[in-house]
Amino acid sequence: MADAAGPGAAPAPRFPVPTTPAPPVGVVGLGQLGGSLAAALAAAGRPVQGWDVDPAARDAAAARGVQISRELSGVVVLAVPLPVMGTALDGLTVAPDATVTDLGSVKGPVLETVGAGVGSRFVGGHPMCGTERSGHAAVDPGLFSGARWALCLEPDTELPRWLRVAEVALAVGAEVVPVTAAEHDDAVAAISHVPHLLAAALAAAADRAGPLALALAAGSFRDGTRVIGSDPGFVRAMVEGNAGATTAALARVQEELARPWAELVADGHAVATRPQGRRAVRVPLDRAALLSLGRAGGAVTRRLAAFVEGYVPDPA
Amino acid sequence: MADAAGPGAAPAPRFPVPTTPAPPVGVVGLGQLGGSLAAALAAAGRPVQGWDVDPAARDAAAARGVQISRELSGVVVLAVPLPVMGTALDGLTVAPDATVTDLGSVKGPVLETVGAGVGSRFVGGHPMCGTERSGHAAVDPGLFSGARWALCLEPDTELPRWLRVAEVALAVGAEVVPVTAAEHDDAVAAISHVPHLLAAALAAAADRAGPLALALAAGSFRDGTRVIGSDPGFVRAMVEGNAGATTAALARVQEELARPWAELVADGHAVATRPQGRRAVRVPLDRAALLSLGRAGGAVTRRLAAFVEGYVPDPA
Repeated sequence: MADAAGPGAAPAPRFPVPTTPAPPVGVVGLGQLGGSLAAALAAAGRPVQGWDVDPAARDAAAARGVQISRELSGVVVLAVPLPVMGTALDGLTVAPDATVTDLGSVKGPVLETVGAGVGSRFVGGHPMCGTERSGHAAVDPGLFSGARWALCLEPDTELPRWLRVAEVALAVGAEVVPVTAAEHDDAVAAISHVPHLLAAALAAAADRAGPLALALAAGSFRDGTRVIGSDPGFVRAMVEGNAGATTAALARVQEELARPWAELVADGHAVATRPQGRRAVRVPLDRAALLSLGRAGGAVTRRLAAFVEGYVPDPA
Repeated sequence: MADAAGPGAAPAPRFPVPTTPAPPVGVVGLGQLGGSLAAALAAAGRPVQGWDVDPAARDAAAARGVQISRELSGVVVLAVPLPVMGTALDGLTVAPDATVTDLGSVKGPVLETVGAGVGSRFVGGHPMCGTERSGHAAVDPGLFSGARWALCLEPDTELPRWLRVAEVALAVGAEVVPVTAAEHDDAVAAISHVPHLLAAALAAAADRAGPLALALAAGSFRDGTRVIGSDPGFVRAMVEGNAGATTAALARVQEELARPWAELVADGHAVATRPQGRRAVRVPLDRAALLSLGRAGGAVTRRLAAFVEGYVPDPA
């Protein structure tokens, strides 16, 4: 092949090559996730507008080079908590042709609420990062570096808009995982929402065991409960907003806990320590091909004119 | 009061004051825990003997100032895996008046096996530290700094021997928690053995959810499964060696998981983020008083002639 990434070609540029001029980005909500995204884009020299109902969050973002504005265009990113996602744009002016995306941890309900208003201009997203801290004081422009960023490709998603949002994610160092909203919600139930419930149950049960137990708590307990230090309103919105998938995933955990411990320990150890190789792939700009990449556990790392580059897991 | 630690007294010495000359310490098993203990004592200038069946572990310990020997006296520390605890002293010569302790993660079974041979010279112990790594390559002389170290006070435990072992733990920076073996085993089921099973179940269930789920796994999944990266033989010996208490603690977690999620999340968050103040206390050298300290969630931080200093939690 003779394209830019082929053998013998000139060295690949370090950053993704947008095929159209990079659109402006407008971030609504400048807490940990939104503030970090806006700061990372501003640090990369990209024009970023932002808004937050909290003046302190606006001031913090402005100090990082974000232009504070109620008028947004290009790629508009809703970075607000799930319960207020549906009203995030109230009082703001959004360009009629803007692509709208979000960073919410559940995708089905956001697709129903935001998607109903925005239509096919909406592309649901969920970067798999963030810590148990929250708010603008927890902003970190490096937050997305190396993180997976799930991006929804529904049957009616306009692929050029999906690619525009993907380029924003790639620009801050994330890897883009193409998914449907339903696939996303099933997956995060298993790897995020159930872990939050297990952490809560572990902490509450240890408390019932008494002060001696809490006094002896060490690494395994701290690791196992850390995530429930997150804002409980946020956690509750997440698990209740994905109740069906979370219930099913919790049932799978219960089935595992009912197995003989020797088998359970051996299998859990094997999963947790499985070598994680990866194999480079190229995927055409096609919904079915992109979704296959995501289902295989792969991700997009770079966008080129006629395809994307990425990888799939390689057990080696 | 006019003792050394009273108001107006001379500044307290930085290290614990042994009331008798510090006995030599002999460590059997020079992997992560035993090797770290021996290295920490050697670094503090204390004479330490050690033995390991693995020549590489012996060489690594010798390089850290540990005298390699099959003849042990003073405080003899069994730092071998649970399944071989009963035969750890085979082939070694132990002084007849030596105090024997161990670092095993379950105390009831060790009391039955080792205690049966050693009698009232045995003091069971369990430092609440260590990582998912193991072996002499994971040795860290700072491993015990600030860690809680459970130390068993059974009805027939000789208090002077208990204090001698406590001084070894204090000398490497640990805080000593007086417990009975049964209290210990109930407590660690809740805060260590159940977290290992939950981590295994979480990993195994996520694997069943498919490659997409594992690809999206981020912080909460990594935290929630880290501990099952530990050696599975070690984990299995631990949970199977404490099956009764672990089953009961797991049942408490299941009860929590059956509660409404909003309540569960709120309660788990409250436990995980509860402020942890502490209040200084003095405790006489008396079994009942020391065990009361442990049951209150407290620990011993310093030994003086007629009492120990320590603290209890203070909700403030």
